Amino acid sequence: MQVKVMKNILRANDMLAEEIREILKQNNVRMFNVLGSPGAGKTAVLEAILPKLQSLGKRVAVIEGDCATSNDADRIAVFNVPVIQINTGSGCHLDANMIRKAAGEFDLSQLDIIFIENVGNLVCPASFDLGEEAKIAVISVTEGDDKPLKYPRIFNESQLVVLNKIDLVPYTNFQRETFYTALESSKAGAVCYEVSCTKEEGFEALINYIK
Amino acid sequence: MQVKVMKNILRANDMLAEEIREILKQNNVRMFNVLGSPGAGKTAVLEAILPKLQSLGKRVAVIEGDCATSNDADRIAVFNVPVIQINTGSGCHLDANMIRKAAGEFDLSQLDIIFIENVGNLVCPASFDLGEEAKIAVISVTEGDDKPLKYPRIFNESQLVVLNKIDLVPYTNFQRETFYTALESSKAGAVCYEVSCTKEEGFEALINYIK
Repeated sequence: MQVKVMKNILRANDMLAEEIREILKQNNVRMFNVLGSPGAGKTAVLEAILPKLQSLGKRVAVIEGDCATSNDADRIAVFNVPVIQINTGSGCHLDANMIRKAAGEFDLSQLDIIFIENVGNLVCPASFDLGEEAKIAVISVTEGDDKPLKYPRIFNESQLVVLNKIDLVPYTNFQRETFYTALESSKAGAVCYEVSCTKEEGFEALINYIK
Repeated sequence: MQVKVMKNILRANDMLAEEIREILKQNNVRMFNVLGSPGAGKTAVLEAILPKLQSLGKRVAVIEGDCATSNDADRIAVFNVPVIQINTGSGCHLDANMIRKAAGEFDLSQLDIIFIENVGNLVCPASFDLGEEAKIAVISVTEGDDKPLKYPRIFNESQLVVLNKIDLVPYTNFQRETFYTALESSKAGAVCYEVSCTKEEGFEALINYIK
């Protein structure tokens, strides 16, 4: 019963996601679904790249997902971009229905890129297609070098991985070799960019990927 | 439909959890459900306190939850305690049915304490009673000082909070006052112990609480 309902929910979600993908394509808008644990630095990565994309003339909007508070949307609003906060309560992920509603609030003809910041969770968001062009997994050094092995699905589903907080490597037991071996076993040929949001380092490759 | 099925699942889970609680009580076994984000340090906290509890004569067993791998169970097995690994695949939490099966593998008459390490996830595990005496939320400094505000339920449901990686405070923008204000707003009167697993500091209060 539980499995059947879940399958029905996922099928309905995927159909809606395809609709969203089609609408975005018609409007020449690219959408990225940013995933990761609580505190991995998803918002901080957006804060780092938003001004860079704006200086390249890109018109960006953001959909923020969190269980509670509008903290992340408030941080993003500083950049003077359209931003919508979705609070999921005890919900552990965003779904396509939430994104369709939120994206409907934007004037798509005035946008080039939409970023979705998913609920902080390294498990559930992997199962839900939101109509994005690509999933970007953000993982931080302080979470440990074994995470791609223990939570393989989100890394397997993501087109790009951003390894954040590399400035903290010297203060932890994080081993790059262990991490990249784990990542490769979750997704052969995975692409990963290393960044530090606090030191504002390493964003060139990410900007090139997105623009 | 989705909501109704979820309610039925939770009700069935809670009944099973009460059964487990009763069985443990009859056997004088205390059980703690350790929750937190991926990489918060749940396994490291167990590694720190297991030898201390053993030196106090406590007989301990551990149930490990993870999406994939037996990495955590392997780390715990070093302490020569009974340990069972549950792999949830794409499942985002442990439930009472899993715990009943796993606990059934132990000889309860030979145990004083069972620790459950839940799947790394700051959202979903909060909803599932596993028959534990208390939930212990592990949160690390590097996840940020705003997490109790953004993921209030798990902090509200937990009887104890362990703030890990305090040795990294100087290298982050973590503000203790912000954290404790956020924690208090999620749960009035919350009890929080600060520890560092890598520096092996701060475990006296936690040991006193558990023993």
